[in-house]
Amino acid sequence: MRDVAIVGAGMTRFGELWESSLRDLFVEAAVEALTSAGADHLDDLYVGNMSGGQFVGQEHLAPLMADHLGMAGIPATRVESACASGGAALRLGYMSVASGMSDVAMVAGVEKMTDGADVTNVLATAADQENEVYHGITFPGLYAMIARAHMAKYGTTDEDLAWVSVKSHHHGSMNAKAQFHREVTVEEVMSSTMVADPLTLLECSPVSDGAAAVILVPLDQAKKYTDRPVRIRGVGQATSAMALADRRDPAALDAVAKAAERAYKATGLAPKDIDVAEVHDCFAIAEIACIEAVGFACEGEGKDAARSGMTALGGKIPVNTSGGLKSKGHPVGASGVAQAIEIFEQLRGEAGERQVEGAHTGLTQNMGGSGASSLVHIFERV
Amino acid sequence: MRDVAIVGAGMTRFGELWESSLRDLFVEAAVEALTSAGADHLDDLYVGNMSGGQFVGQEHLAPLMADHLGMAGIPATRVESACASGGAALRLGYMSVASGMSDVAMVAGVEKMTDGADVTNVLATAADQENEVYHGITFPGLYAMIARAHMAKYGTTDEDLAWVSVKSHHHGSMNAKAQFHREVTVEEVMSSTMVADPLTLLECSPVSDGAAAVILVPLDQAKKYTDRPVRIRGVGQATSAMALADRRDPAALDAVAKAAERAYKATGLAPKDIDVAEVHDCFAIAEIACIEAVGFACEGEGKDAARSGMTALGGKIPVNTSGGLKSKGHPVGASGVAQAIEIFEQLRGEAGERQVEGAHTGLTQNMGGSGASSLVHIFERV
Repeated sequence: MRDVAIVGAGMTRFGELWESSLRDLFVEAAVEALTSAGADHLDDLYVGNMSGGQFVGQEHLAPLMADHLGMAGIPATRVESACASGGAALRLGYMSVASGMSDVAMVAGVEKMTDGADVTNVLATAADQENEVYHGITFPGLYAMIARAHMAKYGTTDEDLAWVSVKSHHHGSMNAKAQFHREVTVEEVMSSTMVADPLTLLECSPVSDGAAAVILVPLDQAKKYTDRPVRIRGVGQATSAMALADRRDPAALDAVAKAAERAYKATGLAPKDIDVAEVHDCFAIAEIACIEAVGFACEGEGKDAARSGMTALGGKIPVNTSGGLKSKGHPVGASGVAQAIEIFEQLRGEAGERQVEGAHTGLTQNMGGSGASSLVHIFERV
Repeated sequence: MRDVAIVGAGMTRFGELWESSLRDLFVEAAVEALTSAGADHLDDLYVGNMSGGQFVGQEHLAPLMADHLGMAGIPATRVESACASGGAALRLGYMSVASGMSDVAMVAGVEKMTDGADVTNVLATAADQENEVYHGITFPGLYAMIARAHMAKYGTTDEDLAWVSVKSHHHGSMNAKAQFHREVTVEEVMSSTMVADPLTLLECSPVSDGAAAVILVPLDQAKKYTDRPVRIRGVGQATSAMALADRRDPAALDAVAKAAERAYKATGLAPKDIDVAEVHDCFAIAEIACIEAVGFACEGEGKDAARSGMTALGGKIPVNTSGGLKSKGHPVGASGVAQAIEIFEQLRGEAGERQVEGAHTGLTQNMGGSGASSLVHIFERV
């Protein structure tokens, strides 16, 4: 397999983008990615999207996106793994270039969530339809149960959860493309509307529109496109039991742990080698469970990370410097690709106020549903 | 890239399978495929599915399928390209094994269409939502327009269309897993209910449930699993303008032609080298346009192929010996994989009454929507 690098990136602002359709969002991000890489053609295209069908009545969207980009003809494939669709697309783009199937591939993620669909019901189709959704559960409810399990097992508190959002909003306040730029306090988070006990409104990621795209080429051709390529060192992917009730431990995310283990094995790296990371904080409890699963904190100790500053800018391992899904926004199919863009910018030293000084190695962790699928990618500065 | 072989296959009967859910269908096909290959583990899983979200309220179905197969933990990815979802999944499984990412991969396709969803409206989401569907078009209507364009340009007749269905039903009558086993006459086809002029009911593929799965391994390890592996020689994938109105010629399927051209280039083969083929006959006109696009007939001459017997069993190039989508059934996400299974069985000499004598090289052509995405795979006996 060939080494693979990211040589360009583009993304829309994330938010309620009433003026842009699904295809508009994709094209905006894709054109910016092509321009930034100076690429004038594509050999292959992967589009991560959770539910164009349910959100806007559009399946079969990979050829449509290629067409609207003015590139009808190229191979184009849509990939879905709920909120991990972007991460799954990135893995396929990596495989396409690594295998030699293509020399210039685009990986994009896109979701249009604010077009009138019943978002909570659409998102619920990422859970087990027969064993969970049918009985009325929604995603805030599923993550509330994960939070309750974590609280019962490790003594995690409401305040621990709130600190995660405080940190996310602090980081997001420095990201021009984030949905929210307002800092919040622990008191504001804790006193915001209860969505699913113990998760408050400010501990839940928002409903967002947005798209993100990156250009992948073989590492040995990367300097044709940019003097600052970022290498994809390796990827791990895993699944777990789908229904929460079928899991070994509802407080643990086994698919995330396994995906991370595979990514570390593929790269020969360990958690201590990572300088900056984006993890899947769809709810505050998710960031806590994810940093434990990828090995930044020991089991049960993720609860202290935001409060202590360990995962904040300037801390030992800054997590979600982009603002994360909470503050940057969470157009579900795009999030996995947007995570890669934050790491791409960090490793190129382009993150501005959010820059992690001297960042050499970065990690992204993206997951679907209540964590039954997960992707972990590891990147390094070349 | 490594050479890749199929070493096992499994599929459900296709039809209105009221007793089986989406997950049941997948597991039945997957277990049969694993058993037939004697494989006890998987390194990777790709699931082609067009619209679990709209048909049965289930997105995020790759981890769910891995879980229900008793293999939670493995990497699992769902791929969607409308009715070409199965073919797109096959390409990814091929890439996974060819690249060295995995040594044992399953490629499956599954669709549950008879669970109460408004099938015509769900299928319509494979067309251009803004420029076609919004204005009321459905798939029978789109293919009727393709048929009218073909008729106007080449003099194709209602009887030419009918002969395609007569052939399909003849082949399907010999396939135990087909949805329909009844032979039909030209008169019956032509006098059946008009669906979208000029396409009659017996010229439209049915609404079906079903699943199909194959096991892929590196060719040099294939003999561990079977003494009759079938090599995947190569694959071509392409897209075209999505909306019919945006195409160079509505009577031609440019994505199919381009995908075939790429598959021939990848393998060094030509249409004359193919002994047996499955093409995407979602409507009778589709088979005619597809055999032209893949080069079995010259432009405008596909209309004569079924009537002359050229594409029937015993003819120069037997097409859709399985019965095709028309007679075997068309659970949309499964069809691309089921096509590969027919060729797998033909090249192993296991097709029974439908056997093409001495078949050495086979081709599958799968497409999405009105043809904006297409996959062509070429296979050979080892």
